[in-house]
Amino acid sequence: MSKSFTLQEIADAVEGRLIGDGTLRVSRLANPADITGAGDLALAMDAKLLPLLKESKATAAVIAESETACDFPATRIVVARPRVALARLTSLFAELVRVKTGIHPSAVIEEGATLGANAAIGAQVFIGANAVIGDNAILHPQAYIGEGAVIGSDAVIYAGAKIGAGTRIGDRVMIHFNASIGADGFSFVTPQAGSVEAAKAGSGGAVTASNTALIRIASLAPVILGDDVEIGANTSIDRGTIASTRIGNGTKIDNQVQVGHNVSIGDNCMICGRVGIAGSVKIGNRVVLGGAVGVADHVSIGDDAIAMAMSGIAGNVAPRTIVGGLPAAPRERMMENFFNVSRLKQFFKKIEHLAERLEKLEKNT
Amino acid sequence: MSKSFTLQEIADAVEGRLIGDGTLRVSRLANPADITGAGDLALAMDAKLLPLLKESKATAAVIAESETACDFPATRIVVARPRVALARLTSLFAELVRVKTGIHPSAVIEEGATLGANAAIGAQVFIGANAVIGDNAILHPQAYIGEGAVIGSDAVIYAGAKIGAGTRIGDRVMIHFNASIGADGFSFVTPQAGSVEAAKAGSGGAVTASNTALIRIASLAPVILGDDVEIGANTSIDRGTIASTRIGNGTKIDNQVQVGHNVSIGDNCMICGRVGIAGSVKIGNRVVLGGAVGVADHVSIGDDAIAMAMSGIAGNVAPRTIVGGLPAAPRERMMENFFNVSRLKQFFKKIEHLAERLEKLEKNT
Amino acid sequence: MSKSFTLQEIADAVEGRLIGDGTLRVSRLANPADITGAGDLALAMDAKLLPLLKESKATAAVIAESETACDFPATRIVVARPRVALARLTSLFAELVRVKTGIHPSAVIEEGATLGANAAIGAQVFIGANAVIGDNAILHPQAYIGEGAVIGSDAVIYAGAKIGAGTRIGDRVMIHFNASIGADGFSFVTPQAGSVEAAKAGSGGAVTASNTALIRIASLAPVILGDDVEIGANTSIDRGTIASTRIGNGTKIDNQVQVGHNVSIGDNCMICGRVGIAGSVKIGNRVVLGGAVGVADHVSIGDDAIAMAMSGIAGNVAPRTIVGGLPAAPRERMMENFFNVSRLKQFFKKIEHLAERLEKLEKNT
Repeated sequence: MSKSFTLQEIADAVEGRLIGDGTLRVSRLANPADITGAGDLALAMDAKLLPLLKESKATAAVIAESETACDFPATRIVVARPRVALARLTSLFAELVRVKTGIHPSAVIEEGATLGANAAIGAQVFIGANAVIGDNAILHPQAYIGEGAVIGSDAVIYAGAKIGAGTRIGDRVMIHFNASIGADGFSFVTPQAGSVEAAKAGSGGAVTASNTALIRIASLAPVILGDDVEIGANTSIDRGTIASTRIGNGTKIDNQVQVGHNVSIGDNCMICGRVGIAGSVKIGNRVVLGGAVGVADHVSIGDDAIAMAMSGIAGNVAPRTIVGGLPAAPRERMMENFFNVSRLKQFFKKIEHLAERLEKLEKNT
Repeated sequence: MSKSFTLQEIADAVEGRLIGDGTLRVSRLANPADITGAGDLALAMDAKLLPLLKESKATAAVIAESETACDFPATRIVVARPRVALARLTSLFAELVRVKTGIHPSAVIEEGATLGANAAIGAQVFIGANAVIGDNAILHPQAYIGEGAVIGSDAVIYAGAKIGAGTRIGDRVMIHFNASIGADGFSFVTPQAGSVEAAKAGSGGAVTASNTALIRIASLAPVILGDDVEIGANTSIDRGTIASTRIGNGTKIDNQVQVGHNVSIGDNCMICGRVGIAGSVKIGNRVVLGGAVGVADHVSIGDDAIAMAMSGIAGNVAPRTIVGGLPAAPRERMMENFFNVSRLKQFFKKIEHLAERLEKLEKNT
Repeated sequence: MSKSFTLQEIADAVEGRLIGDGTLRVSRLANPADITGAGDLALAMDAKLLPLLKESKATAAVIAESETACDFPATRIVVARPRVALARLTSLFAELVRVKTGIHPSAVIEEGATLGANAAIGAQVFIGANAVIGDNAILHPQAYIGEGAVIGSDAVIYAGAKIGAGTRIGDRVMIHFNASIGADGFSFVTPQAGSVEAAKAGSGGAVTASNTALIRIASLAPVILGDDVEIGANTSIDRGTIASTRIGNGTKIDNQVQVGHNVSIGDNCMICGRVGIAGSVKIGNRVVLGGAVGVADHVSIGDDAIAMAMSGIAGNVAPRTIVGGLPAAPRERMMENFFNVSRLKQFFKKIEHLAERLEKLEKNT
């Protein structure tokens, strides 16, 4: 890491209030416990870190406005919203791995593909026929861009990411290691009504039909990602059957997520790690799905809804609702259920006690 | 998309009943809401879509036999089983990405490997020593075929899929982006009885032994996939210890699935996204595991069983049984448990009321 | 498989007691049901396998000390701890796929990278600028080593594994197919307090704030893996924000696991398939997380704790504790809850019965 900034520059970048020497220069962000010397800027925007900060050799720190009692070190920057400050600080110090502008000789580019100005095509990249790569796009080594795919300006495709044929990707999108965008959907049908159809129709515990064969439904429609989307490592997003699978502008998807065919996700959603979204689900804007949430096929989730981690959503969720549990229910109901189950032992005792008293009474009358 | 068909050709392909002009030619399948012109064939095989169809510019549509009231557009095809028709229609219009027959100059093929007639070896493919590639097999760019692996005829291996050494893959198998077939199993042992063994032996809440070291058990046996198997993107299937991990003919596995070492899965199963199958599990034929189902090690699941999404299977499942919940139970029992928990509030009130009445009675006698 | 050993050699390797002919030579390990001839060594270290062993053509077998009644076949090796014997046996017979020492001509190695003695760099490997590859390290085809990454001695990086820039990997580490080490963390903040903050602050069921934008927090700190770590196929481990994500010596991580930013995992842990560990979690030494366990962000898990499969850990776990369920609770409490729910039907009947008796009594007095 070779970047360095004066405290004044940093205060400006984070819109913080500078106390002390603005000419002091730092080249590294560190937790109070990890401070090694004068070039470090301690991040102590949580009151719990102040004792560590006090004991450290820090000569400069960023602290939160709420930490009014903190008067050390001599030079510090006071910020109003710590995580926003963290975003700006880390953005300032980030040194993304560069790929040289132009085409690495080991890259393979098929006929008809076009590259935007200043695009960087790394080693061992494959670009299929007629693909379009936007200006300033960076394709890291071993990325794969399928035939006819369109990659927006300033997009970054990391090593091993696979972008299927015809996929359309917006500007400033980031796709991380080994993500798979645009594989075929998981869509099969049995010649006659099969076991799952029978199970859905009935409520009994026995399967009354057999899947004699599984006929494949092909996926004709490509994946479409909006601008400013981020897709995590090892995540997979499948094509649609006859209409595209779509991810809206600004939506962020974590690692190990599965997005099924025909799914539509709105703008500015946060889809956390290991979430699974089955086919034909519709998700509104600004929805947050916690880690490992599952969403059953054809479900709709309204704008601004939140699903707590590991919940299993089997029915529609209204806008601005918080749901949790398996199966997912509105948070208050889920909490009530948990609480009630935890009280069972005591109620069972109460019932036994009532029975005894009742028996006594019955004997006496 | 440049394929086009007459309505008569399509009616024949889907075994549907043609009403109207069979010479009309279409080149695209679309939802009623997405119809753009005369070249589109509207798919409206669900009564809910009929209002949209009526409002659309569609000149031709596919509708379901059950939609008896539908008399528009003038030209339409009536089908008996909509999803089977969808399978045939999408198969008709699908344009799979082609890889040129022969060997791309950037592919690396080690000594002793053999290629079948018309095999297509894409750019940057690696084929290990003595591997055998079947007739008409298609290896997309950046696929990896390990030493001695055998790939069947008409198999399609997509970009980034890794096929481990010695793997045997049947005919017409499809392996999607970044799938991993044939990594080592996750199998370790502690020198003396470790914490998990102690936990399994007891029922208490405290761990009574410590994992002083983890000794690796190597995986000697390759993965074997039958004919017509499909493996989703980013799915992983591990080798077996001394006997192979096996997937039967016609079984379809979705994205993000984990199949552990020594597992055996029968024919025509459907394993949905994010399922995890621990080591040495035995799964029969035509079994359906819903999304994110977990199966504990050494469990057996009988033919035609269905596990509902997100259920956790800790014990054997009898054939033709529907199970759900965490831990999984037969569906009726699971439903009863959910229902009973939801009634607790009202029963707690009832108990308080009984107690009050009892107290009154006790005072009066 | 061309390795072969005498029974005496094998008995020595597994520290077993040899009965019979130690000069007998075997070249394959097999289950009793799979014995094909005299070159096979039957593994029957489980009493349930003895009937199969008796019926087989096995001329040599490994059995457990506890199987005292077993007096066949004539030549056998008796072992005290079967799975430790299995580890040694499989290690003896394992034939890892070799990569030729030196650099394959299709590999791309950037300026300043250094290779240790006897390192093997496979086909289509990419090594970034200034990376350091240890002695005897094996990089399988299509592996990716980012700029400045450091790979220890005797490490094995399998096909398609991506090792991000700056990652530090210890000695004897194994990274399986398509694993992603060192992608950016999933860390975003809203300009003002967003929906999740509001949801955490309150307990109601409605979302009271909106995520107007998602600002990215960059990940500045690389992943650090200790010695003897093993990482499964398609697993992803993210970078840290300002402090590294760390995995301790000897820890084994299965396939399809997600390890978030800033996480720290101790030594000799076992993290099973499909586990998800959210950001800033701290896990002690010798912890075992069963399949598909989820751990919420900022949680601490003490040494030697065990989480049962599919449990969801939302709060800290004390050392040596066994937890299970969703949300996870100490095993005894979880079991009690399950048991109590299963008794509800009978208690509901009891309550109705009490009510009837009470009513009768009320009428009589």
